[in-house]
Amino acid sequence: MFLEKKAILVIVDGLGDRVAREGKTPLQLTKKPNLDELAREGSVGLMNALGPGVIPGSDTSHLAILGYEPSIYYKGRGPLEALGVGINLKEGDVAFRCNFATVDEELKIIDRRAGRLKDEGKELAKSLQGLKIEGIEVIFASSTEHRGVLVLRGDGLSSDISDTDPHTSENVFVLESKPLNPGKETKKTAKIVNEVVKKSKDILSSHPINKQREKEGKLPANIILTRGAGAYQKVESLKDRYGFNSCCIAGAALYKGVAIYVGMEVLEVPGATGRIDTDIEAKAFAAKEALKKFDFVFIHIKGTDSASHDGNLKDKILMIEKVDKLVNLLKKEDAYLIVTADHSTPVSIKRHSSDSVPLLIYGGNIRKDKVKFFDEISASSGCLGHLTGIQLNKVIIDLMGCGHIVGS
Amino acid sequence: MFLEKKAILVIVDGLGDRVAREGKTPLQLTKKPNLDELAREGSVGLMNALGPGVIPGSDTSHLAILGYEPSIYYKGRGPLEALGVGINLKEGDVAFRCNFATVDEELKIIDRRAGRLKDEGKELAKSLQGLKIEGIEVIFASSTEHRGVLVLRGDGLSSDISDTDPHTSENVFVLESKPLNPGKETKKTAKIVNEVVKKSKDILSSHPINKQREKEGKLPANIILTRGAGAYQKVESLKDRYGFNSCCIAGAALYKGVAIYVGMEVLEVPGATGRIDTDIEAKAFAAKEALKKFDFVFIHIKGTDSASHDGNLKDKILMIEKVDKLVNLLKKEDAYLIVTADHSTPVSIKRHSSDSVPLLIYGGNIRKDKVKFFDEISASSGCLGHLTGIQLNKVIIDLMGCGHIVGS
Repeated sequence: MFLEKKAILVIVDGLGDRVAREGKTPLQLTKKPNLDELAREGSVGLMNALGPGVIPGSDTSHLAILGYEPSIYYKGRGPLEALGVGINLKEGDVAFRCNFATVDEELKIIDRRAGRLKDEGKELAKSLQGLKIEGIEVIFASSTEHRGVLVLRGDGLSSDISDTDPHTSENVFVLESKPLNPGKETKKTAKIVNEVVKKSKDILSSHPINKQREKEGKLPANIILTRGAGAYQKVESLKDRYGFNSCCIAGAALYKGVAIYVGMEVLEVPGATGRIDTDIEAKAFAAKEALKKFDFVFIHIKGTDSASHDGNLKDKILMIEKVDKLVNLLKKEDAYLIVTADHSTPVSIKRHSSDSVPLLIYGGNIRKDKVKFFDEISASSGCLGHLTGIQLNKVIIDLMGCGHIVGS
Repeated sequence: MFLEKKAILVIVDGLGDRVAREGKTPLQLTKKPNLDELAREGSVGLMNALGPGVIPGSDTSHLAILGYEPSIYYKGRGPLEALGVGINLKEGDVAFRCNFATVDEELKIIDRRAGRLKDEGKELAKSLQGLKIEGIEVIFASSTEHRGVLVLRGDGLSSDISDTDPHTSENVFVLESKPLNPGKETKKTAKIVNEVVKKSKDILSSHPINKQREKEGKLPANIILTRGAGAYQKVESLKDRYGFNSCCIAGAALYKGVAIYVGMEVLEVPGATGRIDTDIEAKAFAAKEALKKFDFVFIHIKGTDSASHDGNLKDKILMIEKVDKLVNLLKKEDAYLIVTADHSTPVSIKRHSSDSVPLLIYGGNIRKDKVKFFDEISASSGCLGHLTGIQLNKVIIDLMGCGHIVGS
């Protein structure tokens, strides 16, 4: 590898949008002089991480933008979440995204999120450690609020089983995990998962924290629900592929997990919360420091997506202003600065959509097109055209000088 | 076939660029009234011969633009170079791109280009003729300067072997060619190649030309190094596919080779050197004459790429001015005039890059979009959008009236 220039990739989660007010998108409504300056001085375009018309998940779109074709490298959300909370996965582990939930004695769902826990998850998780079922090791870790991760470790497991989480709280019961193919591995794994869920009910129901919650009139976190099963598979790292060192600055577990999956080092930045209160200066400072050691720095901003899911235009605008501050703090670094989103989350519909997202690349001798503003509409006349996530990755790798010629 | 209109395709090698000076690309910096006129009067767009983010070789990108999907039709550079220097390849021949090089007695590389030969290659090549090893015929031809081509002819050969050229002159030895798969063909071919390289050392070391060079203090061209092995396979010609007659006007061997590969007639134009001193009027005159006999005329311009590889902005601008003169001499012909590049070679990085290239199509009743200048930035708002090489080929074939409807 001969690195020509380092790069900072800022992925602003759920940034893309539709008309939100006065015929304008949130990006068009926000005062963001620095993002506009980078757009004016650099190359601009549109991107659909998984191609036009496809609604991306955050996990699949990040994989694509980092150069890992999701149809090959995406094995479910479970393993990425597990890596993100710091579990050292082994090849063949089957991992699940979990919720702490509240159920009644008939296992009818009362609240899928157990009244959104605060910090009790960590203590509750401890009580679920050390289980072993049919020789399979059961590992459980809590994440933020009501979230957690379950990992099954041992021989003969399969991720091809159904969720126990019914994905709604309305008049439904905990589901039984079922094998999705006739092999003996699926049968075995589904059986163990059902056992784990049942045991979690027994253990958690009598846990002092839940006794206390009930005393306070709160919902007890008396069961875990599983979903997003995935078998972990080690993949070649960015370093193996391109020869450069990379790191990740993110608040939320999933993005750290994606980063670890592709071999990035995850930097812990105090104040990077993955929420709207995230400390943007701390993130910028960490990125500047990281550039001394790493060639590729990936910064994830979560607040825009959370605001969008809540339909909160005001908070989305606030988060865009924070991103504007971030790029201002980073624009003088000797590195390409790339700003884009994983997908659109229009505040008007409060969900991911297939709408394209704007993309800007600033730095070095990059072409300076005629786009003057960083928003979905201005970006459509940019010189980068309309890219997929995989294509954007190739563009970045080539800019850094780490690509290879096809032919001679 | 019902030909509606002839076409001239001008491929300006390595034309695309990034910012070179004053925020502008070389195309933006060059006065080129004729190219701008064609852009103003015709349709404009951007192209990535092998798709966005992919860094094209000159061979693969030319194949794509001519309608030959590289993943199917590209078999290494060797056969294309061999065809280009006039060797009449037979199915199954294995061809190599070669360098005359200088080595010491231990086969350590002194200069991979033997001090860049002038015209001695032709005479040296003669001494390597007539070899036969294990029943395999050895054919060798020189090309420009230190360049040459080796062809092995006979049964049971394979191109799946490694290079003997170490691709650098720095403290390395001639490599041994090795089989890249366990078949007996690869083993046999690698053995013969190693034998040929060894014999070349014996023959060339004692050649009078080299004795003379050494007397003059020059490096002797005392060995040949092989790379880019490829097995020749006859492919259907443009004539077979579309029914029209085509020809090529190019200076450099590779492009003539590509043209011959797809069934074009190569016109020898005195003064078409493939260098910056190429006689652009001679090329234009030859193209005009060719239009009397051929339906499709492909003109290759090499100087822009050479200037870019040297990081020489002044020469790149000079070559663009020559292209401007060329299109001025051709714009009145009764044929579409298509101008584009195979890939970008930014002068700032002196290598191929994945940056898109501008594309213009002029003539007939083609749509007249709002683009006023022929450059990378203006082209991004052209009505042709963003094409791949294969897509551009289809557009040209349809304009000529030689496409077919898919469906009815």
